[in-house]
Amino acid sequence: MKNREANPPAQSIDRKILELFLEREGIVSGEELSTILKVSRTAVWKHIKALRLQGYNIEARHSSGYRLVSTPDILTSAALTAGLDAKVLGRKVICLPSTGSTNSEAYRLAEDGAEEGTVIVADSQLQGKGRLGRIWHSPPGVNLYTSLILKPPILPVDAFQLTFLSAVAVARAIEASIATPPFIKWPNDILLNGKKVAGLLNEMSAETERVNFVILGIGVNLNMLPDQFPEDLRYPATSLAIESGRKINRLQFVRQLLESLDSLYTDYLNNGYGPIRDEWVARCGMIGCRVAVSGTSEQIEGVATGIDDSGALLVRKESGVMARVLAGDVKVL
Amino acid sequence: MKNREANPPAQSIDRKILELFLEREGIVSGEELSTILKVSRTAVWKHIKALRLQGYNIEARHSSGYRLVSTPDILTSAALTAGLDAKVLGRKVICLPSTGSTNSEAYRLAEDGAEEGTVIVADSQLQGKGRLGRIWHSPPGVNLYTSLILKPPILPVDAFQLTFLSAVAVARAIEASIATPPFIKWPNDILLNGKKVAGLLNEMSAETERVNFVILGIGVNLNMLPDQFPEDLRYPATSLAIESGRKINRLQFVRQLLESLDSLYTDYLNNGYGPIRDEWVARCGMIGCRVAVSGTSEQIEGVATGIDDSGALLVRKESGVMARVLAGDVKVL
Repeated sequence: MKNREANPPAQSIDRKILELFLEREGIVSGEELSTILKVSRTAVWKHIKALRLQGYNIEARHSSGYRLVSTPDILTSAALTAGLDAKVLGRKVICLPSTGSTNSEAYRLAEDGAEEGTVIVADSQLQGKGRLGRIWHSPPGVNLYTSLILKPPILPVDAFQLTFLSAVAVARAIEASIATPPFIKWPNDILLNGKKVAGLLNEMSAETERVNFVILGIGVNLNMLPDQFPEDLRYPATSLAIESGRKINRLQFVRQLLESLDSLYTDYLNNGYGPIRDEWVARCGMIGCRVAVSGTSEQIEGVATGIDDSGALLVRKESGVMARVLAGDVKVL
Repeated sequence: MKNREANPPAQSIDRKILELFLEREGIVSGEELSTILKVSRTAVWKHIKALRLQGYNIEARHSSGYRLVSTPDILTSAALTAGLDAKVLGRKVICLPSTGSTNSEAYRLAEDGAEEGTVIVADSQLQGKGRLGRIWHSPPGVNLYTSLILKPPILPVDAFQLTFLSAVAVARAIEASIATPPFIKWPNDILLNGKKVAGLLNEMSAETERVNFVILGIGVNLNMLPDQFPEDLRYPATSLAIESGRKINRLQFVRQLLESLDSLYTDYLNNGYGPIRDEWVARCGMIGCRVAVSGTSEQIEGVATGIDDSGALLVRKESGVMARVLAGDVKVL
């Protein structure tokens, strides 16, 4: 099932053609393509035919050259990286039709020395991973399942900050896509109208004083329909399509998400955790709400007041005592 | 080079024979062995011959049966686990003649689901790992290179505690072996007379709220001689043999270390980090000393006063300001 994408040279010509369409607002002449790409006009024509086979609707006009009429909603490396405004994340994108879990795939690649910013996107996952060993339901063709490799120069104790970073990035991308801001649910869910629309699963390989790499795992329900959800969900779930009433273009969404992640990551490395923490708190739907925490040794109920410097959720109990919640399931009452 | 040990049944009969020698103070009759092991006396004889080939000096006496005269100093699973007083660590011991790095090997096994307490021991390492990507010099036949798989129910932020745990265990085993207590050097070296005799490299795989597994990597210079050390060491090094003036039995040392680790780990799970921290501080050679810290953004000089709850070394600078050192190289002045 390790159906990696084909050889880079053809890929990179495809990507350059798509980039040129982007730059020239959809119309490029065959001569221009031939000159810029340094290949014959016959070769250009072959690449156009290959792009058509991938679902790109490209018209050939004798007068003005090629016109890109529409782009298919399939996730390919060329389509995801063409003209992407990102410095680190998305340097290299690997698209798989199917994999066990994008996190496991990314982890394995990172161990084999894959560079920072490598992104794995899969159309479906056979064993999608949720937090604490749970399953992330991952049918093909409708959603986004992605994992990104980071190698931040931080201490392992600070790695939780990257979970907050990816929550903010996903929230930004969802807001940009459907113009409705989602809520972040501590520690790693994103909700729309109180239902789960995205989940995060970050994994880390570290020494005592050094992070070897962090995998940011992100699953977003984009076009899943009500009858596609399993019946026994722990928490009510939804998708962007259900909440917005329209189909979401996956390609656009992923590009938006990669740009959000990249910009936040650059900010994080330059300016630290503070700005992310502030935006996270502003986007967190729980702060000020009464919550109940389960799955810990003590049942905790109280008002969520914020997060502390180690990522713990602060809950003021009725007794006035402040509880630091470092793990567990939190429910807004 | 993945020269794993042979099939478990033969292994386990070897181990039981060694255990019986241990229980009966070195003398067991062939009849007893045959009855207890439920194999023919011819089969017993075959196993005795196999043990002799491994270097065990076993006499066969017509009157009293078999007598174990001496044990070879080779690290085999049977010899390491026979009668070992350990609950978790050493449940399963895999001895390799050579491997790239015992940590990498253990990490890979843990990812494949190896159980907690699995121990990898290698006679030599081709790419022994030190902290921060450095090399751990690992010639064959003389030292100990081992990695242990733990799956503690702790949060990733507390995983540093296991580095302190393994430092204390190694210090105890060295003290038991040569009757001289070594000093612990923050964060993960063990010194004898100011020279490095052992090093620790712990690695972790974790989610935001859960430790998947921790690898405790331990290298101890046991019988290395002065001319076996590389010339360009960062820090003066020594071995137990050099410091004590006698050859160290590797087998005995590893057994002692596994028992120390196992007992400390059980205590840790039951009673938490407090007792380990206290013993660590008592065994740390730096507390109260003037130290200089390099490899960090700021050069820090001052008096080491202890460690805090996140494992940081506390250094009181001349200005009176307390610095928390979370990474870097520390030198006693």
